Amino acid sequence: MSSPKSPFLSVCEGSQPSQTPVWFMRQAGRSLPEYRALRGSGSILDAIATPEIAAEVTLQPVRRYGVDAAILFSDIVVPVHAIGFGIDVIPGRGPVAETPFTSRADLTRLRPLAPEEDIPHVIETVRRVRDELDENATTLIGFAGAPFTVASYLVEGGPSRTFTKVKALMHGDPDLWHELCDVLADLSIAFISAQVNAGAQALQLFDSWAGALSPPEYERFALPSTTRVMSELGALGVPRILFGVGTGELLSLMATSGADVVGVDWRVPLDVATTRIGNFPVQGNLDPALCFAPTDVLEEATRDVLRRGGHAPGHIFNLGHGVLPETDPDSLKRVVDLVHEEGQILAKAARS
Amino acid sequence: MSSPKSPFLSVCEGSQPSQTPVWFMRQAGRSLPEYRALRGSGSILDAIATPEIAAEVTLQPVRRYGVDAAILFSDIVVPVHAIGFGIDVIPGRGPVAETPFTSRADLTRLRPLAPEEDIPHVIETVRRVRDELDENATTLIGFAGAPFTVASYLVEGGPSRTFTKVKALMHGDPDLWHELCDVLADLSIAFISAQVNAGAQALQLFDSWAGALSPPEYERFALPSTTRVMSELGALGVPRILFGVGTGELLSLMATSGADVVGVDWRVPLDVATTRIGNFPVQGNLDPALCFAPTDVLEEATRDVLRRGGHAPGHIFNLGHGVLPETDPDSLKRVVDLVHEEGQILAKAARS
Repeated sequence: MSSPKSPFLSVCEGSQPSQTPVWFMRQAGRSLPEYRALRGSGSILDAIATPEIAAEVTLQPVRRYGVDAAILFSDIVVPVHAIGFGIDVIPGRGPVAETPFTSRADLTRLRPLAPEEDIPHVIETVRRVRDELDENATTLIGFAGAPFTVASYLVEGGPSRTFTKVKALMHGDPDLWHELCDVLADLSIAFISAQVNAGAQALQLFDSWAGALSPPEYERFALPSTTRVMSELGALGVPRILFGVGTGELLSLMATSGADVVGVDWRVPLDVATTRIGNFPVQGNLDPALCFAPTDVLEEATRDVLRRGGHAPGHIFNLGHGVLPETDPDSLKRVVDLVHEEGQILAKAARS
Repeated sequence: MSSPKSPFLSVCEGSQPSQTPVWFMRQAGRSLPEYRALRGSGSILDAIATPEIAAEVTLQPVRRYGVDAAILFSDIVVPVHAIGFGIDVIPGRGPVAETPFTSRADLTRLRPLAPEEDIPHVIETVRRVRDELDENATTLIGFAGAPFTVASYLVEGGPSRTFTKVKALMHGDPDLWHELCDVLADLSIAFISAQVNAGAQALQLFDSWAGALSPPEYERFALPSTTRVMSELGALGVPRILFGVGTGELLSLMATSGADVVGVDWRVPLDVATTRIGNFPVQGNLDPALCFAPTDVLEEATRDVLRRGGHAPGHIFNLGHGVLPETDPDSLKRVVDLVHEEGQILAKAARS
């Protein structure tokens, strides 16, 4: 008889979990006082590169909230940073590339990732976290950025609201664009593979800014490389989640990527998302801003997400985007407890 | 026999225009060298308050591009600024409220607008612009902000990406929220009425940030006041356009507001939008970022918007959001010419 699966992995496999699994994007980070106490100042990339800190930060929300999954404390620019592209994460701003990607010559700045040499600290962090987690209770998620979203930082040189440079590149030189995405796909594959080989039990690909693309753009310029990442990572045998923000128009395309679970932001009610995605487990999608609303509103919104998520073949509860830095941890704790309480009631009803 | 209608007004009335009308949100502004030469430095609110400048800036894109509509050079915070709420438009940042709206006591800071006393310069600007325009060719559009979007600036104190404060208010104190929206609806009604009474021939209500709301939130907290604005402005007898960004999930609700035309951002192809909106003329929706792509890409994207817009009962060509400040005016000129050329071919085909 095989050991019991964690609620998270049960949902990914299409079986009935003992409780509705819940975790939060950016659960490890600035909203937690214990994180701020540990981190101090300095670049987040330095903290990520220090296994004792990164492992502890990864575990903090598991201890505080009792979430069903830990997500590795890391960043989508870790691989490009590790191979020396020249990128840092600026507090309050985000990833900034000193010299943006502008032409074919910049491809030479993107060599393959050799995980054992380039990111030994990531591998070590994963091992430390797994040592601390009960695998039948809490799942460790590894992650990477999808090629489009990582490329947007390299090409724009930093966070963008308009994505003019990256769109000019993809439309103006599609061959170069696809070569760039191919290189970034290889980086994401190597990055996630290293995490899974070290013990991560699920993976999430963040195509955070895909919602800036129209459906025809997404299909032509983002989906192919994302699909290759999903396909090659399929060999690892762990569940694959694909997530982006503002992707209402893209959900049906995202569902063709090979992902096992599709993450949905708060703009699309999960029952509506299910009609677009089809027979997939979904992840989401409480509006992170509602953590600032009165408790009864937050509770009712949580129940509403649970009800709508019940239309999907499986539901991993999450926010619709990352935890906002000013969020009161007590609000998130209340959400976790409520999801577990109500989710058990729903699970019982489904079994009876 | 009545005088011939402008192409813009023809589309709004459901009749066949002589050419597909085209204009651009933010066509009057920073992307034009003649604007930068005229404006100099200083607050945009000062320029708006100077009729000779505001009228000239409104007319500049009509002269340069031959667009089918002028939109008054103004800002959605003009009414709240005019009644002394304490708000300014900071270059590179946007509207910033010195003391944000936080509680019921702040309602006293929002008195009704008396257009003749509070915004005589707006009335004068409209008159000057109308004097210069051929009414059978070029339509003058007046505008205001929808209550939710204006409220977001007052409550957040400035531009926001997360809208946590405004969502906390609407969910936490729905009565106060609706009272605030009612006051802002009255301001928008008075603001637009003054523009139309002075000569504006159409109106657009900008609910720019409505896409931050989930459909249930939009329906409960934004649509009622927007519907009242549309309803009361219906008495003016001019076409009413409703526009927001990232509103894919909201389009069918927006279509119930009483608007005569629904504006669509670039994320939703216009033929898809039409299936959600129903039997309405649409406005949009070329991605403003594509103005930075090579000319052949821009032209093909323009043709694609025209083709998809052809599925609607009427189509006013526009960008899917405002002109970006760094846009090359020659790109926009090419779009206008192409829309007029191709639109005439489409119109002929429709007639034959």
